[in-house]
Amino acid sequence: MDNDSLTTGGFTLPGEAGYEALTLQLAKKWGADVIRDSDGTQLSDDIIQSPYDIYSTVCLVRSHNAWARLNPRCLQQCCIMSRPVIADGSSLTIEPLSGYFDQQFRINLDDDPKEWWQVFDRTTQKEIPVEHWSCDLETGAVTIQNTLPWHRYTVNFFAYRIWEEISMYNHVTNNWGDQEHLMPIDPIFPDARAQILNYLDHWLDTHPLTKVVRLTAMFYNFWWLWGDPKQQRFIVNDWGSYEFTVSPESIRQFEKKHGYRPVSEQFVNAGLYNNSYKAPSPFYLQWIDFINAFVTDFGKQCIDRIHAAGKKAFLFYNDHWIGVEPTGKRFSQMGFDGIIDGIFNGFEARKVAECPAVTTREIRMHPYLFPTGVNGAPSFLPGGNPTAECKAYWMDIRRALLRKPVDRIGFGGYLHLVENHPDFIDYIELLAKEFRKLRNTVRAEAPWSTGIKVGILTAWGHLRAWACRGHFNRGNPYNEVMESLSGMPVETVFLSFDDILSQGIPADIDVIINAGRAGDAWSGGHHWDNPEIVVAISEFIAKGKAFLGIGEPSALEHRDQRFQLAHLLGVDRDTGLTEAFDRPLFKAEDHFINAGISMVDRPATPMDRLFLTSSGARVLQTDGKNPQVVINEPHKGRTAYFADFRYNPIDTRLLHRTLHWLTRNEGKVDHLCPSNPHTDCAFFQKQKQLIVVNNTGSSQKTSVIITDSSRLDFELEPYGIMIHPVE
Amino acid sequence: MDNDSLTTGGFTLPGEAGYEALTLQLAKKWGADVIRDSDGTQLSDDIIQSPYDIYSTVCLVRSHNAWARLNPRCLQQCCIMSRPVIADGSSLTIEPLSGYFDQQFRINLDDDPKEWWQVFDRTTQKEIPVEHWSCDLETGAVTIQNTLPWHRYTVNFFAYRIWEEISMYNHVTNNWGDQEHLMPIDPIFPDARAQILNYLDHWLDTHPLTKVVRLTAMFYNFWWLWGDPKQQRFIVNDWGSYEFTVSPESIRQFEKKHGYRPVSEQFVNAGLYNNSYKAPSPFYLQWIDFINAFVTDFGKQCIDRIHAAGKKAFLFYNDHWIGVEPTGKRFSQMGFDGIIDGIFNGFEARKVAECPAVTTREIRMHPYLFPTGVNGAPSFLPGGNPTAECKAYWMDIRRALLRKPVDRIGFGGYLHLVENHPDFIDYIELLAKEFRKLRNTVRAEAPWSTGIKVGILTAWGHLRAWACRGHFNRGNPYNEVMESLSGMPVETVFLSFDDILSQGIPADIDVIINAGRAGDAWSGGHHWDNPEIVVAISEFIAKGKAFLGIGEPSALEHRDQRFQLAHLLGVDRDTGLTEAFDRPLFKAEDHFINAGISMVDRPATPMDRLFLTSSGARVLQTDGKNPQVVINEPHKGRTAYFADFRYNPIDTRLLHRTLHWLTRNEGKVDHLCPSNPHTDCAFFQKQKQLIVVNNTGSSQKTSVIITDSSRLDFELEPYGIMIHPVE
Repeated sequence: MDNDSLTTGGFTLPGEAGYEALTLQLAKKWGADVIRDSDGTQLSDDIIQSPYDIYSTVCLVRSHNAWARLNPRCLQQCCIMSRPVIADGSSLTIEPLSGYFDQQFRINLDDDPKEWWQVFDRTTQKEIPVEHWSCDLETGAVTIQNTLPWHRYTVNFFAYRIWEEISMYNHVTNNWGDQEHLMPIDPIFPDARAQILNYLDHWLDTHPLTKVVRLTAMFYNFWWLWGDPKQQRFIVNDWGSYEFTVSPESIRQFEKKHGYRPVSEQFVNAGLYNNSYKAPSPFYLQWIDFINAFVTDFGKQCIDRIHAAGKKAFLFYNDHWIGVEPTGKRFSQMGFDGIIDGIFNGFEARKVAECPAVTTREIRMHPYLFPTGVNGAPSFLPGGNPTAECKAYWMDIRRALLRKPVDRIGFGGYLHLVENHPDFIDYIELLAKEFRKLRNTVRAEAPWSTGIKVGILTAWGHLRAWACRGHFNRGNPYNEVMESLSGMPVETVFLSFDDILSQGIPADIDVIINAGRAGDAWSGGHHWDNPEIVVAISEFIAKGKAFLGIGEPSALEHRDQRFQLAHLLGVDRDTGLTEAFDRPLFKAEDHFINAGISMVDRPATPMDRLFLTSSGARVLQTDGKNPQVVINEPHKGRTAYFADFRYNPIDTRLLHRTLHWLTRNEGKVDHLCPSNPHTDCAFFQKQKQLIVVNNTGSSQKTSVIITDSSRLDFELEPYGIMIHPVE
Repeated sequence: MDNDSLTTGGFTLPGEAGYEALTLQLAKKWGADVIRDSDGTQLSDDIIQSPYDIYSTVCLVRSHNAWARLNPRCLQQCCIMSRPVIADGSSLTIEPLSGYFDQQFRINLDDDPKEWWQVFDRTTQKEIPVEHWSCDLETGAVTIQNTLPWHRYTVNFFAYRIWEEISMYNHVTNNWGDQEHLMPIDPIFPDARAQILNYLDHWLDTHPLTKVVRLTAMFYNFWWLWGDPKQQRFIVNDWGSYEFTVSPESIRQFEKKHGYRPVSEQFVNAGLYNNSYKAPSPFYLQWIDFINAFVTDFGKQCIDRIHAAGKKAFLFYNDHWIGVEPTGKRFSQMGFDGIIDGIFNGFEARKVAECPAVTTREIRMHPYLFPTGVNGAPSFLPGGNPTAECKAYWMDIRRALLRKPVDRIGFGGYLHLVENHPDFIDYIELLAKEFRKLRNTVRAEAPWSTGIKVGILTAWGHLRAWACRGHFNRGNPYNEVMESLSGMPVETVFLSFDDILSQGIPADIDVIINAGRAGDAWSGGHHWDNPEIVVAISEFIAKGKAFLGIGEPSALEHRDQRFQLAHLLGVDRDTGLTEAFDRPLFKAEDHFINAGISMVDRPATPMDRLFLTSSGARVLQTDGKNPQVVINEPHKGRTAYFADFRYNPIDTRLLHRTLHWLTRNEGKVDHLCPSNPHTDCAFFQKQKQLIVVNNTGSSQKTSVIITDSSRLDFELEPYGIMIHPVE
């Protein structure tokens, strides 16, 4: 573990050759103990031989262009659905790559298309028999015979990926011009594995002063399809999807292990693919497990060599992280020493903080030292305000770090970009000191908690704990509530539906939260079709526990109800088919849950077509017509429903009060809860310390009740933090 | 046909015994030619013997209480799903009527529950074998054995209806106290038919001065379940549903005719029943046809007797109209002389105006002369403003009557209620004169039309032309666009999906409109699962025709797209499963369609999660993130999409321009189209007349282009109408 100094350590600085003085000056000012390189930057000898530890980034799959040219079949691939083409006659030719970025893909014509591809009539959802289509083995064009006019046809095809996506993104974003396009090779082939190990050995030999190998990350990138830039730059981007592990060779090996060969449509799923919003099928979970076993096995070989060279191995929990699964059952076998992720907010901080089996957990802060941010808006370019950006992210991250600590922070990118931003340079010095204070306290002792234990129920469960499709998708009810929870004094556990089926609901869970949209993986999708799930949760509630639904919890297409737990929640949503029905009348009422909270100030989007299913349910908010917040007390339990939920002080406070009502802890709701919802606090019993933070850019007054007779008042500076001794 | 006087005729006044002087005074002032009775009022001899024609209301099924008490099995019935009950042990007892209004229903224990009822586990959607439940033949309570804890159970049961719903509503609304509850008898039984014919014969004998028998209407009321008033007064109300025709006896007769016996679940459909928003199943269409054949047959017997008595028979197109189907194939066989409906708006006026096979079409205006309106708000009670109410309805109705005429207007209810509203008395005199002018002109000659022919595509088609579930359901996109169309100079036809399958799309249709919400009968529901439909419409568009989608047109659950015509519309809607996907970028642009229209003033509700499917589609409005109005030109055709549409001057004008663009009639868009969208006009070539109306309560200036060189300017009073000669 890093030392506990408040002025130095726990800070990783991106160095930059050509800016040696700046690198060393900022390393001192920011209290860095580590200097790293980044994609697009090098460290010069002056930097490497400075007294700082050196982290060096390495991507194992993308520095093999010469070898890849000799072994073109060892390139990574993926399976793609062509854009649909409408037939207007009795035959049709589809150019599979039309609409996709031709610099990212080359059609795989080495593995027989007749064996591997599938052609579909998407109007009927039927596969076209292989004898009714042919493939031009020069161009990959597919000609379909006996087409039905005005039906839509697609081709599932395999393509080599000829430009590794992260360097492609960095290249395009930073205008790297005619710099060679790096190609990703696939370790599924023994030759590629040998090449990677050779490369790694050589790399280790030539980086004697590197202390930490920062793997970015293992072998397979998250899924990222680009489009024809003339039409649509990006097609899809999914941090959690395994679509880039798919190739005829990986399918062959899966077949050897599991005895059956998945077809291309199991990866394409009529264009939904296996994206993170789709509740994973049993097949897809098996595929994830298969890839995870392979990545664990070969990844361990790589890490063993790193350790043998006397270096540590850190995982960058992004980019080529697919197959590693830090929350999965094999992660500890790999031997990683640390984990790093580039994050923006609280739940991402928790994702890093709760990574098991490593000794160092580091968060890379934003903005990345690039001219523009991931959304294309200026960061360090004129028009950007990197200091304000960084403060905004830090407010959300700090809330989470009050609950679970990480060990280090850092930055990445082109250091010289900060030169024109002296306020940024000063702010990072402050932030680093603040981080160290916080880290030391939270690392020494878990803060006081309400003891309320929340089970967050999704189709992904623990495998995507504190994660989603990528970064915080604002407006997505699951993301929003996860962000609120990330900084609250409650215990959290992520449950899948399969967990409930195999082990039941853990006895120590007090409240199940189910948040999402109808059919999505967070709400649960097809799992709500299983009566065993409904029964297990009904019994849980009936015996005195609680359930909180947000958005379209437990939603399936309408049977006799749309929300499969509508009879417990007391609220349901019309699908358009039940408008003829009258519904129980209601009036919004005041309640413990919204006491002192101005419901009209909630920045929620009203949901239409909601109605009570029981005249016993109580409504705490309405949009004038539809109930928006509903509570109910079925059997001996309690339930609550929020049509929308956003991460903000009002909703977070509402959630805090709701959890106390749901668990019959109403009397304890104010204990160690700051009076001002723009502030948070954490109490450390052994250290006799109370940390209070101001999450806003204006000064705030707040008070905290420690015991019945003891209340502390605080006045906090903008973005401020206070550490107060408590006897 | 009524005469063409501008001061008298074409007006039906509700008379009221005890208010003879008022009746005759208002009959004169309002130019009535007819006096009628209403439910709850009688006409005294002084009125009946006045020089006015007499319309007398008669409801054939509800004045037989003495007979019904002797023949209790001849009461009408329906099939009901009990409220779901959650099991908490291994057996469960359900009281079927719990939650329903016990004064409306008596459980039918005469037809063996074991033969007719069904019990379901709604958690698994499986039927409980009949040997696992028993029914207490005293109380109707059903006890289910071997229940699974926390599953939800329901009972489908049959109930006699012991209070005829319209008189129940009038009784409750007007506090008729201990007045006897009228019971509806079911002519499915021969004895009941004999009783009805006897009653009718006697009625005809005792109403010698009645000229028109106003049948309200035939035998079966629209579907209207009431709840336990302590919990929920109304359960469901559906003007179009046949659920009140269902009984063991009608099922037995259906079985005789069709060779199979429908089960209760075919009427209950897991609580959706066969409501008008549910796309009708083939079975339900067969049931409608079966009831229609029966009602036509027995209805004709009744009407023949009315004719034999020298009277005319008018149909009240409401209340017990079920089974009559004025737009159906058998209506002309029945022999009705006239049709009357109580209406509020334009599309309802068109429904009456386009009724075939009758010589008199009459609309009953609102407010009904009752203390309160159908929504419970005061009408003639203090706090109501019946004049303003009436003007508002008339503005919408008048637009429609400019396109298709009706012959008469009228009122209903308690005439004495108008005594305290002298402004209402004066306004109705004016309105009646205005109606007569309009009627004479439109009756003489169809007004000029753009010639654009619109096919409105729903699962109901012509069977529910200009109709929906009841009155205008504001906010429902199908209702809203139908209302706009009702007053526009276009030709309209209502198409069903079955029409397209059996006959193709009629060659003279220029534009298909599909408006509704995902899965509902207006959007089409399961019909979009049929590739033949997609193909037929694709071909229609490809050959140069057009399609306008509103709301969630062609929506099904997601396959490779959510809107099954997304590839033609250029726009689709995410279901929550495709958030990982990027979409083509767009900017809202100005276009012929929205030229001169302030899109931001549209009172539309933005729809979320919409995206372009083609970078070729053009966006005319966005909510900042989601395209809201999109046009596309697939193949040789044109399409347009509106996320929301409301009946208002802006959207109606937008629709007018859209239809001209879709049909390549851009150059004709201003011809005979008033410059001010708050006004409408109709041109009558032979009569050389232009009628211009002001749809608002403030004065309006407008001008109308008649020819390239001729423009007329108008200044209209509030609610005004001008008839201008055109040479």
